[in-house]
Amino acid sequence: MTTISPLTRTSSDPVLIDERRPGASSSPSEVRSLVRHGHWTGVTAGLAEGFAQANLVILPREVAYDFLLFCQRNPKPCPLLDVTDPGSPRPAFAAPDADLRTDVPRYHVYRDGQLVDTPIDLSAYWTDSMVGFLLGCSFTFEHELIRAGIRMRHVERCCNVAMYRTSVACRPAGIFAGPLVVSMRPIPASRVSDAVSISARFPAVHGAPVHIGRPQALGIKDLSRPDWGDAQEFGEDDVPVFWACGVTPQAVALEAKPPLMITHAPGHMFVTDIPIRSLASF
Amino acid sequence: MTTISPLTRTSSDPVLIDERRPGASSSPSEVRSLVRHGHWTGVTAGLAEGFAQANLVILPREVAYDFLLFCQRNPKPCPLLDVTDPGSPRPAFAAPDADLRTDVPRYHVYRDGQLVDTPIDLSAYWTDSMVGFLLGCSFTFEHELIRAGIRMRHVERCCNVAMYRTSVACRPAGIFAGPLVVSMRPIPASRVSDAVSISARFPAVHGAPVHIGRPQALGIKDLSRPDWGDAQEFGEDDVPVFWACGVTPQAVALEAKPPLMITHAPGHMFVTDIPIRSLASF
Repeated sequence: MTTISPLTRTSSDPVLIDERRPGASSSPSEVRSLVRHGHWTGVTAGLAEGFAQANLVILPREVAYDFLLFCQRNPKPCPLLDVTDPGSPRPAFAAPDADLRTDVPRYHVYRDGQLVDTPIDLSAYWTDSMVGFLLGCSFTFEHELIRAGIRMRHVERCCNVAMYRTSVACRPAGIFAGPLVVSMRPIPASRVSDAVSISARFPAVHGAPVHIGRPQALGIKDLSRPDWGDAQEFGEDDVPVFWACGVTPQAVALEAKPPLMITHAPGHMFVTDIPIRSLASF
Repeated sequence: MTTISPLTRTSSDPVLIDERRPGASSSPSEVRSLVRHGHWTGVTAGLAEGFAQANLVILPREVAYDFLLFCQRNPKPCPLLDVTDPGSPRPAFAAPDADLRTDVPRYHVYRDGQLVDTPIDLSAYWTDSMVGFLLGCSFTFEHELIRAGIRMRHVERCCNVAMYRTSVACRPAGIFAGPLVVSMRPIPASRVSDAVSISARFPAVHGAPVHIGRPQALGIKDLSRPDWGDAQEFGEDDVPVFWACGVTPQAVALEAKPPLMITHAPGHMFVTDIPIRSLASF
């Protein structure tokens, strides 16, 4: 179950960091251990295949109630996988032996809504009032769609999915309010039903699409100009399918300008111990 | 859409409270209006058929974060339908025109874990710090099981379902900790699969069973002695099927002895505007 150091080394060989790259067959705890010790600071796409990866939002306890309520009220963009006890870096459900201060390859630290640092560990920032929120991410259902033979054009092109701010308001909670952000994937018309039923099985990672086929009705004027990520190419029979997006809680939280907020850096996710298949609701 | 006052009355007729009994075909807002004005103080089983009824827990803001987190960590016994803003009696999602202070036929008021009052409105107790939690209840999935031809023996006998404290601990959150409480229904062996797949469609009202067939494994020594409700009769081919129960959050909350806690009186539920079928996850 390890891809670490395939070469035979003698004790006098220098340790090369590249050798220690985790891979698809690494276990989640192997990935986290390499990350924790600074041996892997890159993106996590494709690592520890079969296990859910999570978006991370860390907030001080003073605003954590409002954020937790925001997630309860907006479960499609904000599917909570785990919430830590105040001050504890341990996600007891998602990965009991993990440490949220060290086990993400790179973090973004925001003060009053401004990015101020991009560290690889949080020792300089963590306090006894910090609460970590782990949210399901769309990598997980994309994996299931691809296995069902539904092409993900952005994966094939190695670019980002297209994301759009919509005219649909989230249900506000305390200091947190803002629009729903959606991700859009072009899906062949003959596979849209399959894409709905497969992603519906995974409510913990955004679930079924929120909208299919009419971008105007979401207030999206031009599909070729996404607010985040890359414009997608459409095949002749492709229909735009929109899922609630994990950028929503980050965008909403930043808009509220909390004194301190920490997230994963884009693409540098937290790798959980949760098998993707265990998240299937039916 | 109304069953109110089928008789023709002149202005001199006395208004009889019994005439104003809501029924299966009443709308949720008709039921709540009768309740609000003191014309109905009874149980809500069978009223406003097709709409979800909810368990109610009201707590002061000081302990609301811990309770919200407890619900997030234990979604099967604590499926949140709605949470109000502190001080607001309006459940904006579940029933925007309702008032949680008046629209439940009877309340239970607890101080430091002791029942101190059973009023029909909360004007004497409501403060600006109160937070209302509405939780899905099993009436809803029972309705679907019955429609699928699965007999609910306690409904046929007009008794309560059997409920048991288990040896399974809930995931604790702050001041809230305690065992999972389950409800048990005897289901014919040939219909157990159907009972699983039908209830799985409704995660917002406890979802699929947590356990099927071996009470000992839940720490239940004697099925004939439930901790709440009534012992159930078993047919020859019946298997005991256990669902997470809404008594769990109430029992756990009372155990924590908050200074003030208000719930619905047993059977006197809050009738929401949410069509049961809209809660289906697939």
